[in-house]
Amino acid sequence: MAGSSFGRILNVTTWGESHGPAVGAVLDGFPAGMELCEQDIQKFLDRRRPGRSSISTPRKEDDKVEILSGIFDGKTTGTPISLLIRNTSAHSSDYDDLKECFRPGHADFGFYEKYGIRDYRGGGRSSGRETAARVAAGAIAQKFLGIMGVDIVAYTRSIGPIQIDRACFDRQLIYTTQTAMPDANADKQAVEFISKCMAEKDSTGGSIECVIKGLPAGIGDPVFDKLDARLAMALMSIGAVKDVSIGDGSLVETAKGSVNNDPFMINEDGVVTTKTNHCGGILGGISDGNDIVIGCSIKPTPSIFQEQDTVDEVWQERKLTIKGRHDPVIVPRAVVVVECMCALTILDSMMTGMSAKSDNILKFYKKIL
Amino acid sequence: MAGSSFGRILNVTTWGESHGPAVGAVLDGFPAGMELCEQDIQKFLDRRRPGRSSISTPRKEDDKVEILSGIFDGKTTGTPISLLIRNTSAHSSDYDDLKECFRPGHADFGFYEKYGIRDYRGGGRSSGRETAARVAAGAIAQKFLGIMGVDIVAYTRSIGPIQIDRACFDRQLIYTTQTAMPDANADKQAVEFISKCMAEKDSTGGSIECVIKGLPAGIGDPVFDKLDARLAMALMSIGAVKDVSIGDGSLVETAKGSVNNDPFMINEDGVVTTKTNHCGGILGGISDGNDIVIGCSIKPTPSIFQEQDTVDEVWQERKLTIKGRHDPVIVPRAVVVVECMCALTILDSMMTGMSAKSDNILKFYKKIL
Amino acid sequence: MAGSSFGRILNVTTWGESHGPAVGAVLDGFPAGMELCEQDIQKFLDRRRPGRSSISTPRKEDDKVEILSGIFDGKTTGTPISLLIRNTSAHSSDYDDLKECFRPGHADFGFYEKYGIRDYRGGGRSSGRETAARVAAGAIAQKFLGIMGVDIVAYTRSIGPIQIDRACFDRQLIYTTQTAMPDANADKQAVEFISKCMAEKDSTGGSIECVIKGLPAGIGDPVFDKLDARLAMALMSIGAVKDVSIGDGSLVETAKGSVNNDPFMINEDGVVTTKTNHCGGILGGISDGNDIVIGCSIKPTPSIFQEQDTVDEVWQERKLTIKGRHDPVIVPRAVVVVECMCALTILDSMMTGMSAKSDNILKFYKKIL
Amino acid sequence: MAGSSFGRILNVTTWGESHGPAVGAVLDGFPAGMELCEQDIQKFLDRRRPGRSSISTPRKEDDKVEILSGIFDGKTTGTPISLLIRNTSAHSSDYDDLKECFRPGHADFGFYEKYGIRDYRGGGRSSGRETAARVAAGAIAQKFLGIMGVDIVAYTRSIGPIQIDRACFDRQLIYTTQTAMPDANADKQAVEFISKCMAEKDSTGGSIECVIKGLPAGIGDPVFDKLDARLAMALMSIGAVKDVSIGDGSLVETAKGSVNNDPFMINEDGVVTTKTNHCGGILGGISDGNDIVIGCSIKPTPSIFQEQDTVDEVWQERKLTIKGRHDPVIVPRAVVVVECMCALTILDSMMTGMSAKSDNILKFYKKIL
Repeated sequence: MAGSSFGRILNVTTWGESHGPAVGAVLDGFPAGMELCEQDIQKFLDRRRPGRSSISTPRKEDDKVEILSGIFDGKTTGTPISLLIRNTSAHSSDYDDLKECFRPGHADFGFYEKYGIRDYRGGGRSSGRETAARVAAGAIAQKFLGIMGVDIVAYTRSIGPIQIDRACFDRQLIYTTQTAMPDANADKQAVEFISKCMAEKDSTGGSIECVIKGLPAGIGDPVFDKLDARLAMALMSIGAVKDVSIGDGSLVETAKGSVNNDPFMINEDGVVTTKTNHCGGILGGISDGNDIVIGCSIKPTPSIFQEQDTVDEVWQERKLTIKGRHDPVIVPRAVVVVECMCALTILDSMMTGMSAKSDNILKFYKKIL
Repeated sequence: MAGSSFGRILNVTTWGESHGPAVGAVLDGFPAGMELCEQDIQKFLDRRRPGRSSISTPRKEDDKVEILSGIFDGKTTGTPISLLIRNTSAHSSDYDDLKECFRPGHADFGFYEKYGIRDYRGGGRSSGRETAARVAAGAIAQKFLGIMGVDIVAYTRSIGPIQIDRACFDRQLIYTTQTAMPDANADKQAVEFISKCMAEKDSTGGSIECVIKGLPAGIGDPVFDKLDARLAMALMSIGAVKDVSIGDGSLVETAKGSVNNDPFMINEDGVVTTKTNHCGGILGGISDGNDIVIGCSIKPTPSIFQEQDTVDEVWQERKLTIKGRHDPVIVPRAVVVVECMCALTILDSMMTGMSAKSDNILKFYKKIL
Repeated sequence: MAGSSFGRILNVTTWGESHGPAVGAVLDGFPAGMELCEQDIQKFLDRRRPGRSSISTPRKEDDKVEILSGIFDGKTTGTPISLLIRNTSAHSSDYDDLKECFRPGHADFGFYEKYGIRDYRGGGRSSGRETAARVAAGAIAQKFLGIMGVDIVAYTRSIGPIQIDRACFDRQLIYTTQTAMPDANADKQAVEFISKCMAEKDSTGGSIECVIKGLPAGIGDPVFDKLDARLAMALMSIGAVKDVSIGDGSLVETAKGSVNNDPFMINEDGVVTTKTNHCGGILGGISDGNDIVIGCSIKPTPSIFQEQDTVDEVWQERKLTIKGRHDPVIVPRAVVVVECMCALTILDSMMTGMSAKSDNILKFYKKIL
Repeated sequence: MAGSSFGRILNVTTWGESHGPAVGAVLDGFPAGMELCEQDIQKFLDRRRPGRSSISTPRKEDDKVEILSGIFDGKTTGTPISLLIRNTSAHSSDYDDLKECFRPGHADFGFYEKYGIRDYRGGGRSSGRETAARVAAGAIAQKFLGIMGVDIVAYTRSIGPIQIDRACFDRQLIYTTQTAMPDANADKQAVEFISKCMAEKDSTGGSIECVIKGLPAGIGDPVFDKLDARLAMALMSIGAVKDVSIGDGSLVETAKGSVNNDPFMINEDGVVTTKTNHCGGILGGISDGNDIVIGCSIKPTPSIFQEQDTVDEVWQERKLTIKGRHDPVIVPRAVVVVECMCALTILDSMMTGMSAKSDNILKFYKKIL
């Protein structure tokens, strides 16, 4: 309840500052009996790791994860899984200029007003580096969802004016392009666009889409804990996200009911489905068996190398030129963060939902008895 | 934790079905000592009440609120405030056709998959009627925020293709127009547009904007409980919302950092502020002292009077023509719901934030000692 | 989180003051599909109802419960169950003397220090009347546990110096004796003892024991949410409870390990059990399949008719003689409250535990798929 | 919500197994601005550390704590404080015999029934070693409470039949005697008694008392989150605790109201106090300004070196002789755990209580504005 935890039955707590000794997560409530090793997590962290390409920050972090608890004989035991990632490439001296200054577009000012103290090195707790801990925990949730047949895939949908062409969708490209776009041509254009931004000491925004396939109908809750409400919180809690949409999103503003409704039908397997998926797989807060389609808008990196107007801690106006190593676009590295936040949210909702029917509780405990 | 509660220190629990005897809310954790009477709440409920105009459902509910606890000598006592609103105009027979049928665009199917049983009368728990309970609780939060100098105002931003003209903004119109638009001309056009939809047995979507003025900097939490993350959950938990944006929202996708950053400055009162407000008053999850600007997209009413394709509980395809009394557009009545959800979220974050600094705790308890 | 809610997945929120219009509870997260009518609840409320006997307060409350939501066609729907009990016999004038005075042994002073305002009529929110709402909610949990084969039985173990003789245990007597003792002889002696206390304008304490049979091994959590820790909180949250014990309780202080350990064995059905049950059915916070045995000590009613020393709201010393209608002993009416708090705690732990094994989640959702 | 976290606004999550690489805690919600270094924590851990005396396990752990986050320039920043304690003296081979066997008096069987897998080395997650993490977090809460003038002192009240004599109370002895008794003579007798138990390959129980001085009136909540209810949960969540009492505890069973009530009076400073403190400083769940007096009973160490009857994972009866290094009595090392759990509970309740009065919220935010 103190703001660094997320989830109800499956609960993740993250900790750590950008330039402290480490960041980490404790994943509590994860079910016992799943095989888990560090490599399962590492491959997700590697997708988020900085320093991989010409359009990313040159800060090079190994981001090696250590599992400190919750595993025995290679399997989860149902006890909290503690995950540790050492910070190895912190150049704190880059931040000396920021000691007394609030960076525009960053949390610095609000944080200082709230707490009266702040770790100005790299944004401290408000740094995007905190999301490494989310990815470590979310990777574990993704592994379990994969075993259940639930597949989560996020990708860059746009960077600045460059949009992917859905006709060219190639999933493998998500993991190999510099932009995490699933479209080679869009990736090429986006890299060019980003390079131009960098040359102008500027940054760009973009958007991410996430599709969750294989989720059964009936996941989520009907009122405050709607599945889309929890997903919206999960994604909006990623620093740079300024908009979250489900299904058709803002297009519903000008839609008519006769078009926006997804008519139910029986598919060739005799199963209930719908003819369209405008709703994005969630109706009234509960999954309907369709793909969940969720999107989010990511603002441009606030750390730019142009001189900016700002103020300092004694409320004087100042000019500020940011140094250090910063991504010109946040989107590509945020893709895996979006995936992982969705995974944590979905698995928590599935676990919470197991006791919705009295019959199921009876059957469950009769087996134990 | 069971899905019908919202908030951490200030916690609201709602209950009730559309066609049961009543709906209600319990607001727990509200501070002691504020004057409160039923009229304070009633005026908010009246803004949500159906049956006020030609473009709204003819279902006429008095929506009279009873306060059952938490008040003594006209003041709040710090104990839970129980609020009861009787359902007086339920025509359950309108729903007999729906007994075995899932309505497209509604929660019916997912709810049935989850629980194995559903109150098909008017959507039961998934009905928009549940939001009356939110408004009753949120009205109390709004009163307190008003005393604190925090002013929350929501209004219809668009209905179908009709957008308000910000140059014509007149706050009083929000409370008097049929559309809750603050622009007389847009209201007129929107009413015409809605009438056309009704003639076509169709419905339309739209959007709502909410502005929160007077909130100090420093409210919200830096990680999962970001103020915008909690607001996003609050708004996405309103049934028909499909998109939530903060500040510039999806416009950030094509923005550059040099434009999107809001440069800090010292205003004429010597106070820190910013030259622009692209961020919508929240940076890194914490308020920066600017107006909070939050928007949401509302889908068209799914209950339309055209024949629709659907399936039933034994998985047969069926034709369905919905009867009953339904709004052709959800937006105008949802405006006050958006305000109230924002009020509950903001006040909870303010209350939670009081213990952020050790000095403040010391000062607080020294006074008690 | 605001203090009037209990439980994680199965969550009860109570509201209401002793002399307000009503008290009530919202039970959220209860599973769908169980048959439920008001009589299921009423029979538990009747066990708690005042005015039944010569040793109980003459305040006569009907304590008729109304179910306002969560039921459809006679079955629970998985949505919150709202329960309302009107206060019909409040004599508020009895409390005028207490307007400015703090009653010794009551919450009055602390409540006033915390909130700066208090409903002095009958203790307001701190009244034992609040437990009627707990019983209403707990009755529903008890019904479900009964269907599962889990049987909860509480009874008066002692009143003042009078202890029950376990050799004379007769369960039916719990529901028929004035003292809720399962031993006719002890009941007779206790009634005499209480009558003597009443003649002396005094009150007496006592103790309650609760036994939970049929609970499978494996319920509870290993660290903070130990089953006994949650039960201890549940019972200590009943106003007059001053001690909670599990199994041998304080006798372990002088026990040796060789005696206190319960050796495991295989019973005649080939099932794991233990030769003794010193631990009271819970080891390391998790049930071991034995009877859960939990006890609590209840203080004497603080409202006595002798003159007492006290102070008032302006910090002056005062003499106080309490009027009104008060039980000379709290124990008999608290028995059903103890049962109900145990039921809520146990069912919540069972529901929470369903997702402990990854295999079970897989099996559960494969059936849905 | 997943069982390894405790607290509402001040929230501690522990993780780690007895024979894993480390144990640790994340303390979230701790206020910003308090000076904190590792030595502040180490001195509490040293009080819990094994291997200090002839009556304690020869397992020698350094129990050196590392602070991994939440501190900047020697002060807390309001962000989560991550605490790491490496396990350095784990002799896992001692536990090979237990691979398939359930130890009597331990969580082994219930844990296995719940999770289907268990780390049998030293009890894994259910080991008393988990409490090192609680002490690390609680030490931080104790430092802050000390600054506020709230003093928490726990001590051994009894071991087996040996009780302390309150007339001989010497606080310093708590930190220097092998038994943590504040009475030199009782300590001497207790050490002799323990030695005799060890010679018999047996163990003994005992009791701990904790007194909290300087807490203002008005802390705690009136219903489920009563201060004593939360303390009871906090203490009962310590593995070996089987009874928790507040104030007179089980003595109230035979007390009369005229004696048990604590009459209010005005003390020489003109402040409200009471003539006696039977209630233990808490009435109706809220502190009354008196010392909080809480006691708990600790069972004898279940790991004894005598041969015991048990069963194995394939439900066969077995003889078991436990090896390894085990304390003959848990009490002395649990004293600091009790203190720390009380500190975490009290500080959380103080922080939560700051928003109880509307006036205080107004005053608080006007200062910010």
